[in-house]
Amino acid sequence: MDNKYIITIARQFGSGGREIGEKLSKALGIPFYDKELISMAAKESGIDSEVFENVDEKATNSLLYSLSMGLYSYGNSFSAMGDLPVNDRLYILQHKIIKKLAEQGPCVIVGRCADYVLKERNDVVNIFIHANMDYRKERAINVRGVDKARAEQVINKTDKVRANYYSFYSGQKWGFAQNYNLCIDSSKMTTDQAVNLIVEYLKIKNQ
Amino acid sequence: MDNKYIITIARQFGSGGREIGEKLSKALGIPFYDKELISMAAKESGIDSEVFENVDEKATNSLLYSLSMGLYSYGNSFSAMGDLPVNDRLYILQHKIIKKLAEQGPCVIVGRCADYVLKERNDVVNIFIHANMDYRKERAINVRGVDKARAEQVINKTDKVRANYYSFYSGQKWGFAQNYNLCIDSSKMTTDQAVNLIVEYLKIKNQ
Repeated sequence: MDNKYIITIARQFGSGGREIGEKLSKALGIPFYDKELISMAAKESGIDSEVFENVDEKATNSLLYSLSMGLYSYGNSFSAMGDLPVNDRLYILQHKIIKKLAEQGPCVIVGRCADYVLKERNDVVNIFIHANMDYRKERAINVRGVDKARAEQVINKTDKVRANYYSFYSGQKWGFAQNYNLCIDSSKMTTDQAVNLIVEYLKIKNQ
Repeated sequence: MDNKYIITIARQFGSGGREIGEKLSKALGIPFYDKELISMAAKESGIDSEVFENVDEKATNSLLYSLSMGLYSYGNSFSAMGDLPVNDRLYILQHKIIKKLAEQGPCVIVGRCADYVLKERNDVVNIFIHANMDYRKERAINVRGVDKARAEQVINKTDKVRANYYSFYSGQKWGFAQNYNLCIDSSKMTTDQAVNLIVEYLKIKNQ
């Protein structure tokens, strides 16, 4: 189908949101960005991508301080961010990259507050994928290789970190329906069915 | 289409959730219950429906007290609820009525914690309809006849009351995506398109 929208996908850990996003990008024939945003940020900054991987989608509590110090005007040079913690540098770089990617046309972007970063555009569809704990535990163990005994703890901790990251940079509540255009409980269907549902949503919007 | 699900619809004030639910019930050829739940409760209890209308979807803070007093076991007789505030009586009656309606087969139920009341069933689809403030203000003024100057205040107050009601009786957060199977931002489409989307959702689940 002819899709004109940029699609952002926020997701609970273990909900299959990444897989749904990847399959959706293939179904629509448009680019997919998830971890790719780290390597792009690494390339742009010259910083090793492993350094960024450790802080990806994790908030610091330093941005307000940084803003008050006038360090947020990063311009074209990465050196202007020299005093910022690496979390904030990565957020700012990803923010720039997400905006640039959106300029290039339809794509699927997973996580990284993309819905908030692109809030001024009117060609964006924001999706949140969630699922019940049983489903997420099963996926965490069987798809992500998380230790069975620690699965629930890992899920809750990862989502807490993601929620803090989203809330810190966007000032909004992660997982709150009104921040998204469509929220889907992926535990009630297969990932292919969830992809079909999003495609139908886009078709209906295009009517 | 052949739909086997009971559909509950929670909705922000002014989002058009009621209209979407009503159109959906017609599209599926199944009963629709919203304010009807008040007259049913009135009929069952012998209390005037006007009395119930004033407290519909409003929480008291008395249920915990009532529970501790052992007054919650309402059985077959309404007299057992004689000491409960009218809000709690209405909730309990609606709770019973919603369970009975669900037993009778597929239908659409708006509000009244129906998702929570029916949480033990596996043939229920829980939907949340929300919209941005501009859309809701316009609908509140033009469809619901709310005074323009007070529209935003009425919206926020009504939703606060609904959120308290939901939270009080269910212990869950109203409007939090994970409580629902599908959340739709109705300001991004017409009510007919939102109905189509829900019908597509049901079709995909039936595949």
